[in-house]
Amino acid sequence: MIYSAIPLAQTVIQLCKAKQIKHIVISPGSRNAPLTIGFTHDPFFTCYSIVDERCAAFFALGIAQQLKKPVAVACTSGSALLNYYPAISEAFYSNIPLVVLSADRPKHMIGIGDGQTINQPNVFKNHILYSANLKLDVKEEHNRFSSEPFPVFKTLEHKLEHVLNLQNHAQNSNETEINSALNIAKAQQGPVHINIPFDEPLYNRVETLSVNPEVIAIEEESLELDFETIEFCADDWNAAERKLVLVGVNGPNEIEQKYLDVLAEDDSVIVLTETTSNVHHEAFFPSIDKLITPLTEGEFKALQPDILLTIGGLIVSKRVKAFLRTYKPKQHWHVGQTKANDTFFSLNKHIKTTPNQFLSQLTIRITVVESDYKTYWNRVKEYRELKHDAYLADMLYSDFKVFDVLIKTLRPKSVLQLGNSSTIRYAQLFNLPADVEVFCNRGTSGIDGSTSTAIGCAVVTPKPTTLISGDLSFLYDSNALWNNYIPSNFRIIVINNEGGGIFRILPGHKNTENFDCFFETKHHLTAKHLAEMYKFEYQSASNEYELVSELNTFYSESKSPKLLEIFTPSTINDSILIDYFKALK
Amino acid sequence: MIYSAIPLAQTVIQLCKAKQIKHIVISPGSRNAPLTIGFTHDPFFTCYSIVDERCAAFFALGIAQQLKKPVAVACTSGSALLNYYPAISEAFYSNIPLVVLSADRPKHMIGIGDGQTINQPNVFKNHILYSANLKLDVKEEHNRFSSEPFPVFKTLEHKLEHVLNLQNHAQNSNETEINSALNIAKAQQGPVHINIPFDEPLYNRVETLSVNPEVIAIEEESLELDFETIEFCADDWNAAERKLVLVGVNGPNEIEQKYLDVLAEDDSVIVLTETTSNVHHEAFFPSIDKLITPLTEGEFKALQPDILLTIGGLIVSKRVKAFLRTYKPKQHWHVGQTKANDTFFSLNKHIKTTPNQFLSQLTIRITVVESDYKTYWNRVKEYRELKHDAYLADMLYSDFKVFDVLIKTLRPKSVLQLGNSSTIRYAQLFNLPADVEVFCNRGTSGIDGSTSTAIGCAVVTPKPTTLISGDLSFLYDSNALWNNYIPSNFRIIVINNEGGGIFRILPGHKNTENFDCFFETKHHLTAKHLAEMYKFEYQSASNEYELVSELNTFYSESKSPKLLEIFTPSTINDSILIDYFKALK
Repeated sequence: MIYSAIPLAQTVIQLCKAKQIKHIVISPGSRNAPLTIGFTHDPFFTCYSIVDERCAAFFALGIAQQLKKPVAVACTSGSALLNYYPAISEAFYSNIPLVVLSADRPKHMIGIGDGQTINQPNVFKNHILYSANLKLDVKEEHNRFSSEPFPVFKTLEHKLEHVLNLQNHAQNSNETEINSALNIAKAQQGPVHINIPFDEPLYNRVETLSVNPEVIAIEEESLELDFETIEFCADDWNAAERKLVLVGVNGPNEIEQKYLDVLAEDDSVIVLTETTSNVHHEAFFPSIDKLITPLTEGEFKALQPDILLTIGGLIVSKRVKAFLRTYKPKQHWHVGQTKANDTFFSLNKHIKTTPNQFLSQLTIRITVVESDYKTYWNRVKEYRELKHDAYLADMLYSDFKVFDVLIKTLRPKSVLQLGNSSTIRYAQLFNLPADVEVFCNRGTSGIDGSTSTAIGCAVVTPKPTTLISGDLSFLYDSNALWNNYIPSNFRIIVINNEGGGIFRILPGHKNTENFDCFFETKHHLTAKHLAEMYKFEYQSASNEYELVSELNTFYSESKSPKLLEIFTPSTINDSILIDYFKALK
Repeated sequence: MIYSAIPLAQTVIQLCKAKQIKHIVISPGSRNAPLTIGFTHDPFFTCYSIVDERCAAFFALGIAQQLKKPVAVACTSGSALLNYYPAISEAFYSNIPLVVLSADRPKHMIGIGDGQTINQPNVFKNHILYSANLKLDVKEEHNRFSSEPFPVFKTLEHKLEHVLNLQNHAQNSNETEINSALNIAKAQQGPVHINIPFDEPLYNRVETLSVNPEVIAIEEESLELDFETIEFCADDWNAAERKLVLVGVNGPNEIEQKYLDVLAEDDSVIVLTETTSNVHHEAFFPSIDKLITPLTEGEFKALQPDILLTIGGLIVSKRVKAFLRTYKPKQHWHVGQTKANDTFFSLNKHIKTTPNQFLSQLTIRITVVESDYKTYWNRVKEYRELKHDAYLADMLYSDFKVFDVLIKTLRPKSVLQLGNSSTIRYAQLFNLPADVEVFCNRGTSGIDGSTSTAIGCAVVTPKPTTLISGDLSFLYDSNALWNNYIPSNFRIIVINNEGGGIFRILPGHKNTENFDCFFETKHHLTAKHLAEMYKFEYQSASNEYELVSELNTFYSESKSPKLLEIFTPSTINDSILIDYFKALK
């Protein structure tokens, strides 16, 4: 086997291996050559080369999102590292384990005007679970300063001992730091940063390891709730007539269906599911906005829960947030291993375990509570469905209509990645098929890395992956396509309404020059040239007939990935959406 | 006039105006709508709309680089802001005044799981001169919490007084913070961050200002060195037989030619000028690497200076750094208003004024020192020029040859923007014409924003601007072209050697699969599709004949900007460069 000659590079790589971090996304550079040499020569690792670090980090995020295991990104020193930041913040708020390995110059070469040198330690402080700032291997440090003053020793043996002591000290402290960072990424599911100083020579290789770093195991915490906690919960639960369960971002198959079935059959429970929740039952209430937007004050009061139980990550629906902030639940419990957000200013209980564990302990304790809570709202739901279908039936060709067509024609057993802004909001208005897994970067809700994330997902999931994106989000992350690993069954759908269509729905002053330029950012660009450049098969549609016709072949097997660009009329999209909510009444 | 109804937005904008910040680069968003409304409705400001914040910030950097005055970028909350970071770090190390205006949610909406919300205050801490974390207007804060507990007051007058007091306090503290940030950006020439919380409603407008913020003037520091300081310098200077002046990144016309002429005529002074120094004299020594690479130990000792005077920003030449670190000067003085880098581990004097001021005071005190320092090295320089020309005369078509042709055909009185990595290093081997102004992002030496920077420059400079870039750097910043402000006389030259050619020169193991993929990042992409997409006229060349022929028309007037892509043979570039340095002997 070939290893970097630098012991610190060996240490980092051996510990990544010991911690089962298999996927390594590398951006080219010289300072990180010791890592590149080590990772790419060990067949344990699957390495990817991505030049643009912003894309590289979102690509890694997409892999980690699917695997729920730490994935590493490695880059050179300097501003390269800062391009990781958007994905790091997304990982931070979405609880995705991303391990950032940044090569750095030795400390004495920082702040003296050397090239590609910035202040790297703790640079992601506001959005990172742990920053390990490693020390240069002492051997190197000593070589570097061999002409510098050094303690005087009686004998050469004494001197050697001193150097070895220093060396062991740095090595031990580095090992501890690396173990801590990697353990935290895995245990707490989030981003960590390991900053690694390397000195020249950077390209030397050896055939045997010179280190054998200690592997510190993660202390496993028990997921089981103690008797008292769960009994208290069950007592309150069984005493409440109106329990609202709200499921935000949640991975597929994280919650066993048998527990969901218990909730679904309970008359005192309503389960509101967001598009990103990946839980399904015909008795659940998907497309929350559709349900609650037309409600009157009286109806909101009738929906106001005694207990609100939130599961999963961030909530997309602004309307359900506004509702629950105004009509606060008597109790708000959040179940989840990491942070509990006080989204509705009424959180009173953080149940620190997995939703699955909690439900396994709760459901066996549930007693029947007489309530018309679900029955009543079920009738409202059914009514809305009828109204929805009626409105859609003779809807003009528009963003909304396009979503209707797209969601009805999704591939079975596929993964759907959604862009932020309009895309996720439109998708929330539909009931998605249960065999389609849905993901969206809702941690920061940025438009900056959706395509890269989707490609990372597509690379590791066994299912075919489709990305639906708006034009701005797609253009923003156009470098995502600069990627040699895109599987041929990957599909991108760009809904091109020539700008930030979502701004037309917001209360700005539309159709002025300022609005078009600075809010909607009107453009006449198409994805066609990018598709050509990056060897995607390109299809396009500008009306419903073309759309249906293109979809007939779009998902069929192909040698290259495909991109379908759907042009929609930007000026009518907003009124169609606004009228929709009126029509639901 | 139309203003945002939010007093804090008015305050920020009025203070920007008072501080003569004219250029505002806005990225679309809802949270920053109050800023967008205010800036775009006031004809004092020139506003630009750029969607990708990474490009937006580098574009603003390019403007500020030319004007040497603060330029503002404004974006919405969330990860949008983090995309500014690469340009902020470049501004930090290149002393470019960039004012970051980030809209934020009110404090009580942060960390509770709301969308597009991150931890914005102090987020650029490692690379910012000042972070102003503003407070929400109290009026809004009070409205928001009108249902919350509030101190009990005897009368309505008392309550009103209390609210007004709080409001004045926030307003005063915000005014002070904004003044501080803007003053520091200007006085210390670097990036500052102003984080601005806004609450809904965001889109309301008014026709009269409700604030009249206090404008705090910058305290001007005297540039003049006191008598003792300059006399000490002059004494040492006049006693030294070997004075080496090394000029790094330095703006055009920053130093008066008459002072440079004095240095040029002094036999005890050698002036080494980097490509980015923008100083010229036939007695100076440009292309440092050409001069020093072939030197023997004895020659290095002969070149070793008594006094090293450094002027300007970061040094490109790795060889001159290695030389001066090994053959340290007896004294190293740095002249400049901001930080002095101890690049050669021998800095003993930081002369805190402008180079122009220092030279104006020094040159009148200079006495003749007998020395053969310059005469000797001048002969070496002349010898190298001959060798250089001889080698170039029958050089094969390659990156190196392309630079020879390009530099001989630059437009007179133009601005040349250089990409990092290979591009700047090749350019350093040539003597550039004195009427061409040269810029390169050497603060962090990143490949991430050169095109955006060049476009920012092109928008404000009265001279025609040309960017020379490598293929990786160009592709990295491809979104730079998503910009509606590019002047038709702007030219991009992409030297496409299908990957990171610079890595072939480094000591890696070439021509292995790993090397091609992870170091050189070999690709077969071209700039052609991007040129089509963004309406650039496209030309290409694959040999010297085609290159010369394309250049005949490339700079001629056109309706659209133009892009010339030059394909070079990647496999011979490295040996041609290595042999060049041998041929100089």
